[in-house]
Amino acid sequence: MPLVRISVPAHLRPEKTFALANAVHDALVATCDIPQTDRFQLISRFPAEAMIIDPTFPNVERSAEASIVEITFIAGKSEEMKRRLYHHIVTTVATAGLRPDDVLIALTENARIDWSPGRGLAYEGPPGS
Amino acid sequence: MPLVRISVPAHLRPEKTFALANAVHDALVATCDIPQTDRFQLISRFPAEAMIIDPTFPNVERSAEASIVEITFIAGKSEEMKRRLYHHIVTTVATAGLRPDDVLIALTENARIDWSPGRGLAYEGPPGS
Amino acid sequence: MPLVRISVPAHLRPEKTFALANAVHDALVATCDIPQTDRFQLISRFPAEAMIIDPTFPNVERSAEASIVEITFIAGKSEEMKRRLYHHIVTTVATAGLRPDDVLIALTENARIDWSPGRGLAYEGPPGS
Repeated sequence: MPLVRISVPAHLRPEKTFALANAVHDALVATCDIPQTDRFQLISRFPAEAMIIDPTFPNVERSAEASIVEITFIAGKSEEMKRRLYHHIVTTVATAGLRPDDVLIALTENARIDWSPGRGLAYEGPPGS
Repeated sequence: MPLVRISVPAHLRPEKTFALANAVHDALVATCDIPQTDRFQLISRFPAEAMIIDPTFPNVERSAEASIVEITFIAGKSEEMKRRLYHHIVTTVATAGLRPDDVLIALTENARIDWSPGRGLAYEGPPGS
Repeated sequence: MPLVRISVPAHLRPEKTFALANAVHDALVATCDIPQTDRFQLISRFPAEAMIIDPTFPNVERSAEASIVEITFIAGKSEEMKRRLYHHIVTTVATAGLRPDDVLIALTENARIDWSPGRGLAYEGPPGS
C-alpha cells in the first residue's frame, strides 16, 4: 500500500509527468515487492515560485524540470531495495526525457496497521507490500 | 495534534467533501482521544488525471469519488483504536452518501515534541493526543 | 535533506508567504545543522474553506493568516534542537508581520537511506543533516 505524491513544476509537459508517475510505480513493483495493482498516486503541479529547490545540493545539476517524489509505504524494505528503487525510477523516466538529476525522492515508512484501503477495514496484505 | 490531509477528486460535491472532513474529525475524537477542538485539516481537490487510484486493490470497488485521507498524529494509538478509527470514518461518511469503498486512509506517526501549535513553543499536551 | 511543505491561506500576501519560507529555512540552518544550500520547499495556497484550522487549540489565538509548516527530515535532532527550531521560525517571520500564533509546525522523521537527492543515488551526506 504505497501512497505516492509527485510534485512537478506546472510547465512540465504532461507526457513527462505521467512518465514519472509510471516510472515510480514500475520501480516499486520491480524492486520493492509492491503488487502491480497496488497503485495510489497524487500529482500536484506547482507554479515556479511555489517550488523552491536548490539547483545543485548536494552534488547534482537540477534544471527547471526538477520534481519531487514522496513515497509513504510499509516499513520493511532493505537498504538495498531502496537503492534499487531510486536507480530504477530515474533510469526508467530518463527514457521519457526527464533528467536523472531532476528527480528527488523521499521515503516515509509506517506500519501495516496504518493503512485502510477501504470499507473501514485495516489492510490485511503481506507486511512488506 | 493530528494534521489531516484530505485529497478528493475535483468533481466531488462540496457536501460530500466536508462530510468526509467532519467524519474524520468526529472519528478521531470518538476513537483516538483527540480533543474536540484539536482540528487541523487541509483539503485538496485533484483533477481526475492527477489522481491515479487503482479501482479494486486489494479487495474493494472504488468509484470516481474515491478519496484519500492522510492523518499524521502522535504515536501511541493501539491497533484496536486504529481499527475503530477506520470503521468510524466510513460509517459516518456513508450517511452523506460517500461509499465506504471510496475512502482510503493512511496514518503516519510522530512524537509529541514534533509539534508546535503556535508561538514557537513545543506542544505540551498529553502524549497520545 | 529536509523537505518542507508550507500551506498558507490563498489570501496571504506573497511577501509574508516567502518570509515564512525563508524563516523556516534559516531556522533549519541555524538550529538543526542543515547546510545553507540544502533547501527544498513546496508552497501550497488553500482557499479558506479548504483549510480547517481551529482558532485557539490548545492555547493560542489564530487569525485568518494561520499557516501550517510540515518538515520531513532525517532523525537525530534533539528535543532541544526542535524547540530552538520552532522558536527561531516564529521570531524570524514575526519581523515580516506574520504573527507567532499563526504558525503551526509538524515534524516527521525518516532515515538517511530514505533520501535520493537525484541521479538515482541514495543520499550520502552526514546522518543528521
